[in-house]
Amino acid sequence: MVNEMHPKLEEPVSPKDWTSGIERPMSLLEHIPEDPEPLVELGSQHIVSVRQLNQDKMAQLFRLAALYETTPSLYQPPLTGKILISAFYEPSTRTRLSFESAWHRLGGDIMSITDPASTGIAKGESLRDVAEMFNNYGDLVVLRDNHNTAVYEMIDALRIPIINAGNGTDEHPTQAMADMYAIFKWRPELLYNDVPEEKKVNIGIIGVPSRMRTVRSLLLFLAMYPRGVKEVVIITSDEDEAFSEGQLEELESSGLKIRVSHELDGELPELDVVYINAIAWVGDSFETHGKSFKLGPDSPLKPGSIILHPLARGDELSTELDDTSHNWYFAQARGAVFIRMALLTTLSQRINQVMEASA
Amino acid sequence: MVNEMHPKLEEPVSPKDWTSGIERPMSLLEHIPEDPEPLVELGSQHIVSVRQLNQDKMAQLFRLAALYETTPSLYQPPLTGKILISAFYEPSTRTRLSFESAWHRLGGDIMSITDPASTGIAKGESLRDVAEMFNNYGDLVVLRDNHNTAVYEMIDALRIPIINAGNGTDEHPTQAMADMYAIFKWRPELLYNDVPEEKKVNIGIIGVPSRMRTVRSLLLFLAMYPRGVKEVVIITSDEDEAFSEGQLEELESSGLKIRVSHELDGELPELDVVYINAIAWVGDSFETHGKSFKLGPDSPLKPGSIILHPLARGDELSTELDDTSHNWYFAQARGAVFIRMALLTTLSQRINQVMEASA
Amino acid sequence: MVNEMHPKLEEPVSPKDWTSGIERPMSLLEHIPEDPEPLVELGSQHIVSVRQLNQDKMAQLFRLAALYETTPSLYQPPLTGKILISAFYEPSTRTRLSFESAWHRLGGDIMSITDPASTGIAKGESLRDVAEMFNNYGDLVVLRDNHNTAVYEMIDALRIPIINAGNGTDEHPTQAMADMYAIFKWRPELLYNDVPEEKKVNIGIIGVPSRMRTVRSLLLFLAMYPRGVKEVVIITSDEDEAFSEGQLEELESSGLKIRVSHELDGELPELDVVYINAIAWVGDSFETHGKSFKLGPDSPLKPGSIILHPLARGDELSTELDDTSHNWYFAQARGAVFIRMALLTTLSQRINQVMEASA
Repeated sequence: MVNEMHPKLEEPVSPKDWTSGIERPMSLLEHIPEDPEPLVELGSQHIVSVRQLNQDKMAQLFRLAALYETTPSLYQPPLTGKILISAFYEPSTRTRLSFESAWHRLGGDIMSITDPASTGIAKGESLRDVAEMFNNYGDLVVLRDNHNTAVYEMIDALRIPIINAGNGTDEHPTQAMADMYAIFKWRPELLYNDVPEEKKVNIGIIGVPSRMRTVRSLLLFLAMYPRGVKEVVIITSDEDEAFSEGQLEELESSGLKIRVSHELDGELPELDVVYINAIAWVGDSFETHGKSFKLGPDSPLKPGSIILHPLARGDELSTELDDTSHNWYFAQARGAVFIRMALLTTLSQRINQVMEASA
Repeated sequence: MVNEMHPKLEEPVSPKDWTSGIERPMSLLEHIPEDPEPLVELGSQHIVSVRQLNQDKMAQLFRLAALYETTPSLYQPPLTGKILISAFYEPSTRTRLSFESAWHRLGGDIMSITDPASTGIAKGESLRDVAEMFNNYGDLVVLRDNHNTAVYEMIDALRIPIINAGNGTDEHPTQAMADMYAIFKWRPELLYNDVPEEKKVNIGIIGVPSRMRTVRSLLLFLAMYPRGVKEVVIITSDEDEAFSEGQLEELESSGLKIRVSHELDGELPELDVVYINAIAWVGDSFETHGKSFKLGPDSPLKPGSIILHPLARGDELSTELDDTSHNWYFAQARGAVFIRMALLTTLSQRINQVMEASA
Repeated sequence: MVNEMHPKLEEPVSPKDWTSGIERPMSLLEHIPEDPEPLVELGSQHIVSVRQLNQDKMAQLFRLAALYETTPSLYQPPLTGKILISAFYEPSTRTRLSFESAWHRLGGDIMSITDPASTGIAKGESLRDVAEMFNNYGDLVVLRDNHNTAVYEMIDALRIPIINAGNGTDEHPTQAMADMYAIFKWRPELLYNDVPEEKKVNIGIIGVPSRMRTVRSLLLFLAMYPRGVKEVVIITSDEDEAFSEGQLEELESSGLKIRVSHELDGELPELDVVYINAIAWVGDSFETHGKSFKLGPDSPLKPGSIILHPLARGDELSTELDDTSHNWYFAQARGAVFIRMALLTTLSQRINQVMEASA
């Protein structure tokens, strides 16, 4: 309690927002010719795993996300009258708000469930019955649950689309979409299969593919674009088992080159993209991994390289990097809203309201 | 974690929804001539007890519910700009989402209170003062509270309508409305007083009228339509006191015939409607009743009979019955949204926007 | 459980609302000539402290609040498409609902955070990073936090406006705006600097300026209008330190006359405005002060005097005063929605949609 006005209050709310420049998404938009068909097709799917997607569908999702990002406001919000059931049985603010913001910006209404103790599940209700309830009360479900299998149990009974917003240690496909959207805004040419050798990138992932759903989904996406990637380096502690059974084999079968390293600073000078995450959600708690790996102002980052982080961050990523050109994690977080807007429009089968769809 | 696409993800989101067929509500709609007057009159009431309703009001509510159920979307949502205060001081997902979905589908906005610990009540604020606050901040209140008297304390100070969504062990009128709406969609002719003898039905209620608010309200409704009912059989355990003081007498004074049985399978072959519920909310916890009574594929159900359940269910109602024609509990749950839409439109005094009201 | 209709249910929902008469706000409206400029200027500010405001800005806010209070509904809600992030890291229902009701009535959408345990903050996320997230997901933040400094940490990273809805023991400026709005509806002439001597008022504050953020902010407002106030009497217990360091000096420097008293009933006959509050939020709990000070039907209140209370109340303010003309605390609570509507419209830079703004 100061008895005078705090100096911070003398300044106006900053209207400048460097992460919100429209040049990057505009450039990505121009790289991708509009084609509604892949999204119309996607509109009849639940979204649980990155494995359900392909390059064509992703390109159109990225294009639509970029359209949303470069368009200040929608004149006719395509989801007016639609209701989202935002069911976060595992605590989350960031992912929940990102989905809810996306849905609101599309004009829809929301019902949130943030407290599992308040649900019939606490009384022993089956997830199938919960899904049956959701069919009657909403138009689309976003589910986070710390059990890998919950989303699959729901699908058996659902007649409305569901999006997996994190299922235990398994997947988190929309987070990985946001990662990829950031990468393609940075380098749109990586979208294509004919990337020239000198444009290919080295990607470092500081994290544990066997334990982190964000990393698991990201790697599945990278395996969708193997020709733009020179090498993926997984940087983990000695003590962590980097891959779960069969995971590495599935990824390598796509043609992606993957190497494991236990050392960070030796790898950084060669990495074009550095993805870092320290937290793995396991059951109803979280594990912290790779405590010795930290990115800071003294890290030997390659000039022009970008850092991604799914956030929230701890001290593995220094705030001193926030004001450098390596900071793409804020743009990544911002883009998460727009890529989700694109996906939500698609699954609500309202693509025809924002694209020249034939269907 | 499988390293391939889960087979469930190969199939499209099912567009088919057998509970959402419009034939049943359309048939009910055709049975009831439109008359806005009873609803205009109802529009000046709080809704706390089934005792406030009568056949005329209910017929018009059912008609409006059927209209909503058969109308895919509202062109001019009648509650645009109206704010619902959704106050669930006792945990609930199903009832809360049903009301919130109904309100959103009518175009309104919602403020939820799901955590009693976060309220002034925790600091000792009176319910009268909370009601005074609600007057200023919203247009209608839905209240669930585990004290039978809370809703009455609020009414003293409220100048906006309140709907009782479950007050302790007392009543839950809108759940019972949903029960009745399901019954009348199944047999519209039961609405009338001149039901021919061969069309009258036997109704079995597996539950405890003295402890379960859902059963208490349902019985009050059945007492409103005694001429369509041959007999109501209450099926309870020996150890439960079936009725609270005066309850049976009040019901019988309507002309309803009521009998208590302690045996399930001997009754089933004669029952046209089987209502089952095992949970009673008492204070801040719940009791489970009638553990020996279970409905499953081997139960001797009468052909053509229907099963109702307020949900959430435990193992008293086998999922193996879900795909049989006895399953009317899903239609009942679905209809709960539409009957609440009808009631909310009425209490918000917007009947004139959806019916040819003179008032 | 009575087996007949409760007598309270026989009566219609009262359409009369004596606090909602439009004479008082209409009179205030007529006292203040419209001038959008001060609000356009205010539109680029965060609102954390009363110190950021002045008489011109407040007069226009009061005018706009009175306009909203006297206008039954907005034809074109100015915040359509805007998203409020309602972040209450300290429990609150009243303030939260008041802000959310205001935002909804202006046509906007809302995302609520009511459970701090569900946030990244619980995992050690910095408030700066939370603020960065808010930039991407919403258009305005309302924050309650039990740390005095939290709102200042957020401001460093925010590019959207924030409103302080209570920061520890420091300030609660919008509550104090509601207090002042009630006072000026009662006596519009106190708005001006040339209040004749016989119209000046004595104001009693039963509370502890050193501990209560509501009182702290109210005193800062009173110091903005010293010429209408004969004297402010702070009525506290002996054991409480009335002022924090420098607080009294800052207030007196405005010309406001302040005196401390430890006796209530001896002061009441001279007081025109009696403000009473017994609770101070400190850390994650609350203190109760002044237990011996109670207002009731036997209190020697000056005829024509008004009572204000930020609510929720305990037994310091008897409900027996509710139906007397001293009760301005209900009007104060009601006005809280309209003054917040005025502020939210201003900070969202939509003044031009409700006033003839040149900007």
